[in-house]
Amino acid sequence: MGFKSWLDIPKSSHFSLANLPFGIISAPNSPKPRAAVAIGDQCLDLKAFQGQNGFSACSQDVGDVFAQPTLNPFAALGRPAHRAVRKYIQDIFREDTPHASILKDNQEAQKACLLRQDQVKMHLPMQIGDYTDFYAGKNHAYNLGCILRDPKNALQPNYTHLPVGYHGRASSVVVSGTPVVRPNGQVLEDPKAEVKKPVFKPCQRLDVEVELGAFLCQGNQMGQPIPISEAEDSIFGIVLLNDWSARDIQAWEYVPLGPFNAKNFASTISPWIVLMDALEPFRTEGIKNDTELLPYLQEKNPKNMFDIRLQFALTPDGGKQNVVANTNGKHLLYSFPQMLAHHTIGGCPMNVGDLLGSGTISGTDAGTEGAMIEITKGGKETIKLEDGVERKFLQDGDTVVLRGVCGNEEDGLVGFGECRGTIMPAPKLSF
Amino acid sequence: MGFKSWLDIPKSSHFSLANLPFGIISAPNSPKPRAAVAIGDQCLDLKAFQGQNGFSACSQDVGDVFAQPTLNPFAALGRPAHRAVRKYIQDIFREDTPHASILKDNQEAQKACLLRQDQVKMHLPMQIGDYTDFYAGKNHAYNLGCILRDPKNALQPNYTHLPVGYHGRASSVVVSGTPVVRPNGQVLEDPKAEVKKPVFKPCQRLDVEVELGAFLCQGNQMGQPIPISEAEDSIFGIVLLNDWSARDIQAWEYVPLGPFNAKNFASTISPWIVLMDALEPFRTEGIKNDTELLPYLQEKNPKNMFDIRLQFALTPDGGKQNVVANTNGKHLLYSFPQMLAHHTIGGCPMNVGDLLGSGTISGTDAGTEGAMIEITKGGKETIKLEDGVERKFLQDGDTVVLRGVCGNEEDGLVGFGECRGTIMPAPKLSF
Repeated sequence: MGFKSWLDIPKSSHFSLANLPFGIISAPNSPKPRAAVAIGDQCLDLKAFQGQNGFSACSQDVGDVFAQPTLNPFAALGRPAHRAVRKYIQDIFREDTPHASILKDNQEAQKACLLRQDQVKMHLPMQIGDYTDFYAGKNHAYNLGCILRDPKNALQPNYTHLPVGYHGRASSVVVSGTPVVRPNGQVLEDPKAEVKKPVFKPCQRLDVEVELGAFLCQGNQMGQPIPISEAEDSIFGIVLLNDWSARDIQAWEYVPLGPFNAKNFASTISPWIVLMDALEPFRTEGIKNDTELLPYLQEKNPKNMFDIRLQFALTPDGGKQNVVANTNGKHLLYSFPQMLAHHTIGGCPMNVGDLLGSGTISGTDAGTEGAMIEITKGGKETIKLEDGVERKFLQDGDTVVLRGVCGNEEDGLVGFGECRGTIMPAPKLSF
Repeated sequence: MGFKSWLDIPKSSHFSLANLPFGIISAPNSPKPRAAVAIGDQCLDLKAFQGQNGFSACSQDVGDVFAQPTLNPFAALGRPAHRAVRKYIQDIFREDTPHASILKDNQEAQKACLLRQDQVKMHLPMQIGDYTDFYAGKNHAYNLGCILRDPKNALQPNYTHLPVGYHGRASSVVVSGTPVVRPNGQVLEDPKAEVKKPVFKPCQRLDVEVELGAFLCQGNQMGQPIPISEAEDSIFGIVLLNDWSARDIQAWEYVPLGPFNAKNFASTISPWIVLMDALEPFRTEGIKNDTELLPYLQEKNPKNMFDIRLQFALTPDGGKQNVVANTNGKHLLYSFPQMLAHHTIGGCPMNVGDLLGSGTISGTDAGTEGAMIEITKGGKETIKLEDGVERKFLQDGDTVVLRGVCGNEEDGLVGFGECRGTIMPAPKLSF
């Protein structure tokens, strides 16, 4: 049922012809970052493709957007333009392409435009103006509430009425592969002591948060909300997001204004942005909300989530890779359009390139939790890895990889590739 | 004792020769935003000044930084460059200037470079990457804690150990004069009801927060903290900041991740950035902290605050201006260098143009509170204005002006001008 391509695309590739995600690449002999599309093990250098008159048969005028160091100018062209360009590139790579002379039968153009993914460097795909992290993973919020409070008061009264979120640190968002330095900070070692006296030390409870991130392709004027019926048009595409968290720093600092240094040392995203059109076939329902939402949050289509199989894998330094959890992108109480409608209901201005995080995505069963603090019940239990290795939280040298994929090999996988980070030791500081 | 100038500078001007703050201007017949310095009622168009070879005798090479639409490139030159340029412009305007031919005796250059402030439009002076709002006004935090909790538990245990802060919304920072649209949002009308059911309505408890804002001129590499001994060098200058707050929206949304839509609809800053060197003579001690801070937060100089007289004035639509509160920039528990050292201690990357808010600044006496919620004890009391007008919170058409000034007329005032905003009605929405 999937498109056949003249290009050799491995069946197991996340980047089938049904996907075609966009990213920013550079290569050793052409170090200037520019736009590309992933396809199989390769990628199409869109700037080079344009230099070969590759877009000569495309209905969409792309100007010089693909020569830019971020995807913001392409995103700003809007959903119809993304659709036209993606469809055109699909046509270019189809076995029965109507434009064979452009690439299929043009060895010179192939040589100029097709690069092996393992030979390019990936960059942050967007210039992020503001980053907001939501908390829409209800199972995670509940699990965490049980650990911090008790099952009866696990969720706050507002939780089922609005997508709870907070402003994150845009400058700390990095692309997959960037090392993550363990933060130092203030930690309260004995929370039950009469006199609360924090100590200064490297974070001892460094954790993962398995999330999805949505990039915006359209903003709004300050003071003018984005209605939920139009919110979908403002979303460019989706990435995997690991919102690394320092749980011990968080526990001490977060009252009353929310997490701060516990979250702003790094958040890692996967490099290829999967466009909304590529995800469309995988629509599904999310977690049912028994609370009747206020009208500004009501969506017509109950299939407002995406069936994305998510995986969290951990590799100790020099050890074997362990799949620690398998979860799914549908385990959310609020969709990205709902988050966006809520974010702007008071008039907050959004811009092209802004990033929304979903919040940690956990299922309800053991082995589906998107954070170590949930798996280990707040650090009380242990995660058993291969070769007798154990973890409660991350150690220096640990590598975490998130993966996400939709669909099947028959129709062509629509995947996100990897969102990877390795923990480096905290800097030794002297005062 | 103050410098005498050949230019007529009114004694009451915030912009004496001892100040020379930087901003971004445009004019009707030269609409391209560029850098300027305020002096008396006028401003020196730095791009035009450079076009007249105005910097020919300046030791600092300024390249084309003043032709740019933000001050980021100038800020990035660093504190020694700011010092050299400010000192040079002071020399240019001194009665006994050694460079009389450049401007004092050059009518043509004066005509090309000097513009009346009431004839230019002010723009946001910096491109803000990230905005962080702290909560260092201890008296405000205490007053608010008494309203929300009780005097015994007014301050959280972490408060005296670290500068509590949260990430704000950079896109919502606007320059003085920008209208502020009242936000709609979810409000819990009866917080004591068994079943918590919010309603959707325009904010009824719209408030002011009198703050100072610090712009950064230097960042850090991710993972590498800025030591407190070097933090001062990262601060470009100070502005007034009104962090408008929707108290009813805040009360419902803020658990457990902090304020969100209550704060992200607008934050207004004054347009002229007062450089750190101009504030140096006004160093003073802040609120004493009886808690011994961890070494990374310890400053050598106990005079780590600035004696800035702050004023919050309110003018009802068509009514008279009322001074509602007088407070002082020294009423803070933590200095900007302490905030910056804490912000980066876990490795959070800062960039040129980032903005740090101090938190609301209140004194301890009646009439020194920097927010209406404090003056009205949570909306229980009333602020009596002229002509029999009363307020608990802001009404549509109200204009709020913050002012700030250091020093005296004899030596030349060092002031911030105005930070102004008028409340517009919430948009009427239909679903």
